[in-house]
This record gives sequence, structure tokens and C-alpha cells, in this order.
Amino acid sequence: MVAWVPDLLYASGRFERGLALVCGPDGRIARLAPVAEIEDGVEIIRLAGRAMLPGLVNAHSHAFQRVIRGRTEYRTGGRDTFWTWREMMYSAAQRLGPEEIYDASRMAFVEMALGGITAVGEFHYIHHAPDGAAYSDPNLLAKEVARAARDVGLRIAVLRVFYARSGHSTGPNAHQARFIEKDAGVYLRHVESLMSDLARAHADHGAWAGCAPHSLRAVPLDSVREIVRFARSGGLPLHMHIAEQPAEVAAVTAEYGRPPVALLAGEELLDQRLTAVHAVHVNSDEVRALARAGSIVCACPTTERNLGDGIVRADALFSAGARIALGTDSHTQIDLLEDARELEYHLRLQRLERAVLAPDAPGETTALAARLFDCATVTGAQSIGAQSGRLEANRWADFFTVARDDPSIAGAAPDDLLSAIIFSLSRTAVRDVAVGGRLIVAGGRHPAQDEIVSRFAALQRKLWG
Amino acid sequence: MVAWVPDLLYASGRFERGLALVCGPDGRIARLAPVAEIEDGVEIIRLAGRAMLPGLVNAHSHAFQRVIRGRTEYRTGGRDTFWTWREMMYSAAQRLGPEEIYDASRMAFVEMALGGITAVGEFHYIHHAPDGAAYSDPNLLAKEVARAARDVGLRIAVLRVFYARSGHSTGPNAHQARFIEKDAGVYLRHVESLMSDLARAHADHGAWAGCAPHSLRAVPLDSVREIVRFARSGGLPLHMHIAEQPAEVAAVTAEYGRPPVALLAGEELLDQRLTAVHAVHVNSDEVRALARAGSIVCACPTTERNLGDGIVRADALFSAGARIALGTDSHTQIDLLEDARELEYHLRLQRLERAVLAPDAPGETTALAARLFDCATVTGAQSIGAQSGRLEANRWADFFTVARDDPSIAGAAPDDLLSAIIFSLSRTAVRDVAVGGRLIVAGGRHPAQDEIVSRFAALQRKLWG
Repeated sequence: MVAWVPDLLYASGRFERGLALVCGPDGRIARLAPVAEIEDGVEIIRLAGRAMLPGLVNAHSHAFQRVIRGRTEYRTGGRDTFWTWREMMYSAAQRLGPEEIYDASRMAFVEMALGGITAVGEFHYIHHAPDGAAYSDPNLLAKEVARAARDVGLRIAVLRVFYARSGHSTGPNAHQARFIEKDAGVYLRHVESLMSDLARAHADHGAWAGCAPHSLRAVPLDSVREIVRFARSGGLPLHMHIAEQPAEVAAVTAEYGRPPVALLAGEELLDQRLTAVHAVHVNSDEVRALARAGSIVCACPTTERNLGDGIVRADALFSAGARIALGTDSHTQIDLLEDARELEYHLRLQRLERAVLAPDAPGETTALAARLFDCATVTGAQSIGAQSGRLEANRWADFFTVARDDPSIAGAAPDDLLSAIIFSLSRTAVRDVAVGGRLIVAGGRHPAQDEIVSRFAALQRKLWG
Repeated sequence: MVAWVPDLLYASGRFERGLALVCGPDGRIARLAPVAEIEDGVEIIRLAGRAMLPGLVNAHSHAFQRVIRGRTEYRTGGRDTFWTWREMMYSAAQRLGPEEIYDASRMAFVEMALGGITAVGEFHYIHHAPDGAAYSDPNLLAKEVARAARDVGLRIAVLRVFYARSGHSTGPNAHQARFIEKDAGVYLRHVESLMSDLARAHADHGAWAGCAPHSLRAVPLDSVREIVRFARSGGLPLHMHIAEQPAEVAAVTAEYGRPPVALLAGEELLDQRLTAVHAVHVNSDEVRALARAGSIVCACPTTERNLGDGIVRADALFSAGARIALGTDSHTQIDLLEDARELEYHLRLQRLERAVLAPDAPGETTALAARLFDCATVTGAQSIGAQSGRLEANRWADFFTVARDDPSIAGAAPDDLLSAIIFSLSRTAVRDVAVGGRLIVAGGRHPAQDEIVSRFAALQRKLWG
């Protein structure tokens, strides 16, 4: 048993002094206890000047897209949109073999770790070799991504994607050849073998599988039905891109006569298990349907602003009672707290108001920050099926600490600290990050950081010259 | 003479290898020269693994507002807006004496330095004691702010504010008693004495004064005219809050029959000397008027999103030929590169497009980043009257470096590095910061950082208990 003793510990919605996080040999939180009550024989590790919080959960990642950071921010001619960006992203995706996927993923994951993220949901859709031929192991690349997470020390839900087609009445796009699998039956057999392979190779809940029909554009409704049934019966996380772009909504409406969420609701495919990634372009009926079903919306604001997707209707979603998780998605930035603040800020810009997402509790000074922090922790953990997100007994001992004297949060009293962290934290403040009670980042450094960066720099030179 | 030798140096719009920045004993750049051509006797300082850029210029700051960071992010009851926030900010402003102003300002300035900022324009409007009585020196507080900048090592333009009234046909607001001066004549005498006092106390262009009629709401037009004349004849920077909020535009229109920029244009008060801070709510005629006059708009997106001000029309402004500088304003975050990217990103969210502010040069991969970087450097320097903003001979040797192996920019080739910095840099990457060729930050630390933070934490405890 180890007792971690920070200055302040975030539990039950507030920062407390004098509490220790007691961690068992199984990597779970045994209990939170006053420091004075720690019995003899328990090793005490003091984290002076630090505040401890539950590890952040990044519910939507495409790790390989780290290779195009900074390489798509220009005018290509004509109108630049998500769709022109997608072609650039596909070109990069064509060029990555198993080792490249591993190196790019480690780079993304180590930056996540350094930012306080302890678990990630990887929406993984590259399955075949660059020429479209199947690898002998259809999960080769999925397992490379999982290996990268393990070597960094992050937990990972590998949300294995089914990609059936370019779109309804749309010719094939050669760049999608690495993604496409024959049918949902084949796909589900691959998910099953991934489940057992991950369970074998990743002890202690390091990696697990989930289902991800890519989108209603890329997967016919019958296959969506089949995959949802499978995920429900197996208790697996279920993620789907939904309504990121108006053109996608238009295509679904053209095919089925209804926009995506309305279609899923009508088919009884919405439930608590489903995470609807993006859900930017949804109407008010769809907002209510998501809330009624208990589905989670995964917002990815740093990506949604980069791609010109639009603003998630978090105000309407919260009012209706829906839950919201957060993801760093394309990794143009990896800073989940920036995603949290943008969920609120983009609505302030739209409505010319402040405290838009604050629960209706005037004068409760931390209610807004707590709601946004829950998106980055509690709801993310629910979304990907992680037993983390709160510092409480029996959950995994996944946490991070911030230095209270970092200039970005210096001077914050315990009651203001969460607001300061949500609205102002700079990554310089993150000091320790632990997964299952084991430090993966100490003093703001990851032990393999230099090697990971150097391998990644070599990969980038190889890819881009 | 000292020759600084980074891996890469940003000059003439691109990163170059093998160039040294040769700095003279006067704190100016003597020249940029190939490393091989550095003569004997010049001290060589190698910055291995670092890329060097001109120091960032923060054109709009209210340093004391650092004390309310994280303390206004909640629902107060009713509709929360800029105006409810302003009352909270005023309450804080009431509580700060000279030492408190100094301590809060040092905290803001040291965070600026750690983020690569080397010069700041401080829009300073607290002049009197908390009870509204004049200090024996009407520039006491302005000089405390300048002292704070000097002790951190930043250059500062003290943009001394004239505040005449709460508004047209508006009763006095007790919270503004510390700001208000009798008339423009009195104000300008105080500016004159500030000019000479700063010149005496701050050698080597460390601090200088500028004029800042607060806004057309708070200053009658006759006084604005008088101040503009003074600034023009003295060659002083001239800053003014303009069109931050719709209510301000409505008030000006009610008083004068025209919105703020149209009014200034009609009165021939727009020129190259003027920096219009915010300019969010301007119509298309006003955009053209700003461009035609050569005025600078200072956008403050991290604050404008926090306060719910709205989105600066940077697309229209650039198309019309206007210049844009950047400021961190209320200091909810101090990260001028985040301001730079938001200038672009908020328009992507509004227009559902990408590369909105890229000059019309398809395929030029760094043109957008270079334009945004110029806002944070060249135009900022023009706005506050600093001889910095570019690394070229005769300008001040004000620069910062970033570690190329920082995870936020790792793997970027020289041609992609500026885009990576603009769109993705985390403050962890900033290593060295120099002003006048003298390091004020080394290895990501400021030598007085611990003392500044500890004084600030004590101040916050005193203010908020």
C-alpha cells in the first residue's frame, strides 16, 4: 500500500486539504483517508506544493494524425474546408506502415500523458496495408496503437472502426482502401479476436476493445444495427461520428429521409452505450433524443475549430440533460483542458454572454468549472468504459498533479483552483501523472520522452523529406 | 559583442540554419551573419536544439486584472455578460494600493516573459487612491506598473488612460472614482510628467508613455480631439477601446448619431498612430475606414471569448488592408500565440471554412502562419512604438527561443515550424527570452519567479481570504 499525500486533493467536487490517496497493490484506490489516519507500514509519498486530480480521459483520438500537425494550415486553392483537409489527411494515412503507426501514436500519447491524460479512446480505422491488401493479422495496426499506449503507460480503449463505403451512391475513394472491410460479420469477428488479443497482451486493464461504426455515411444502416446489437450484448463501448459536417447530415437525410440522430432514434439505436462524436449539426429534436436516450456526445472543440466544423450545442444538450465527453481528435493541439474551456467559450462568442454552461445555481462559484471538469474525466470514463474519472475507492488509481506555484494558476485559493485550472492552466503546471498508482510522468517529464521524440522526428523526416 | 547561435533563426519570413544573431553592447542587433563569418573576439553562445524568433509584443494589457483570474467564471444570477463581469473587476480594482498593483503586475509580466513576450502595452487607468483622492504623485500607480515591468525585464509602453465620465447622460459609478481625471488638460500634464519620469528612471528604452483616451463612452469627443492632437505632435502611441460591446456602440450612436469608428473617421481622428482596441462590432464601412487610415486594430481573442465580446472581423480587416496587433488584455490566459490562432479559428467556426486569413496565395504553406505571427510581433511593435518585432540590424535584440524537441512542435521541419508554433505551441517549449540581448528567462525559468509567485500568493490571500 502506498499513500500519496498532495497539498490538495480533488474529491467529491472540491479540493480538500490533508487527505491521502491510498493505493492498493492492484492499482486501485483503496480509500481516501486523513493523513493522520494512515497506519504504520504504509509508504507515504508527499507531493508538496501539488494539487491532485483524477486523470483526464481523452474520449476521441486519431493518434496517427499527429504526423500532419502544422502541415495543413494553408490555402490550397478554392474554398478550404473539412473536406479538403480530409484529402490531405488521407494522403498521410496512406504512407504509414506498422512501425510508423507505432511511432506516431507514441508521440501523441506521450504528449497526452504530459498533459494529465491517463486514458484514451482511439477511434482506429486503418486496417490494411497501404495497397489495400489485408495484413495476415487484421488487427495488426490496432495492436500497434495499443502497444504504443502501453509503452507510454496510458490506458486505451481501441474503438475498432467499421468502414464499409465512401458514401451512399458515391464511387469508391482510393484513399479509403485501407479502411474498408467486407461486411459487418467480418468486422465483428475481427473485433472479437481483438478483444481476446488485447486481454492477453495487456494486463491490468491496460487495453480493451470497443465498436465504432464509422458514420452513417460510411456504414449502411443494416450494418449499424448489427454492430449495435453486438456491442450491447457484449457490454462494449460504442462510438460513432455523427453530424460533424453539414454535408454529412445532408447525405444521410438524402438517403434515409431523416438527419443522423433522428434516424438512430427512430431505429432505437440510441442508448446509454452510444457516444455520438461531434454532434455539431443536430436540431433541437435530436438534442432531446440524445438526452432522452442517455447517450453521450463527445465534443472535440480544438479540432472542430481547426477543421471549421462548427460549435457544439452544449447549452441545449446540458439543458436537455445529455452528457458530454471530450476528445483531442486530430491532435492539432493535445490539451484536453483547452477543449473543456472551449466548450463554454465558443458559446460565449455565439451568444455574447458569459457563464453559458453554468448550472442554474447563482453564486455557486465552482459549478461551471466542475461541470466542464466532469466532461474531461467522469463522462469520458463512462464513454470509453474506464473505471477512472473520480478519485474514490475501488476506481483505478489514475491521477495527475499540478504545481500550485505555476504562473498559470499561482495564487488560486482551494475554492478557486478548479476554475483556474479549467480556464487558465498551462501544461507547464502538470508535474506527476500516475496510471494504476504507477508514475508515468514525474516532474513534468516522461522517462521515454527523448527517445519517442527522436524516433518521431526521424519518421517526419522520412515522410516529408 | 555577443553572437547567439540557435539551430534555426526566423528572419525575413522564414527559418534559416547557420545564422548568428550578433548583438552589440547597446542591446541592439548589430547584424545577422553566417556563423562561419563571426570574427575572433566575439563571444559565441550556442543554443543547441533551439529555434529563435523575435520577441512577442503584447499590445494590450491590464496587468492588475490578473488578481481575478478564475474568480469570475460563474453565474451571478440573471444574464451574465461583459457588464456583470465589469462590476466584479471594478470591485477588485478598488482594493489595490501601490504595492498590490506592483505585485499583481509582476505576476502578469513574469508569465508574459515565460511565454516569449518581450514588450507590453499597458492600458493603465487606475490613478487615484481607493477613496478617489489624488495621490501626491498623479503617476504613482503608473510608475509602479513600469517598475514591475523593469524588475521582470520586460519593456513597457505605459498607455496612460484618460477617463472622464461613466458615459453620456449616465450618473457616476462609484467604482470609477479611481480612474476619473478633471479634464484633458490636467490629463495631458500628467502624461508629460510621466514621459519625463519614465525616461529618467528607465534607461535603454525600458519604458515610455503613450496616450489612451479610454473610449468614446468614457471620454467626450472634444477631449478625444485634444488628446489625439497631443499624441500626433509628440509622436506618442495612441490607443483607445473601440466597439468591444454592442451596448457601447449603441451609446455612441445615441450621443453622436454615428457608431464609434465612423465618428472618428468623420472627425479625421483615425490615422496610422491610432490602435483601435477590440473593434469587434464595426460595420463594413468602418472596416474600410480603419484600413484607409492605416490604423491598427488590436484584437484580444482569449479575452474576447472569455467576456463574450464576439469575433473580430479579421477577414474583412485584412481584405481591406488593415493591420492587426494582439493583446492578452484581461489575462484570463497569457499566451499570445493562442490569441494569434484564435484570430483565425473563431472565423473558421463562424464560416465553417479553413485557412480563412491565409493571403490569397494557394500552396504557400507558411503564409497564414507568417501573417498571424506578424500580428504578434511586427504589428504589435508598431502599435506600442517598440523598435522590435523582427530580427534585423538596428532593432532591439529582443527574442525568444523554443526547444525543437518539445512534444508540441516535435518533428516539425524548418518549413513547417512556424505553422506548428502558431497552431500548436505549448508554453513548455519556451526556453530562453532576451530583452536588449540580456536573458530574462533561461531554461524556461525566470530568476525571480519564485519570489514573484510567493508575493502574489500572499496578495491573493489578503484580497480574498
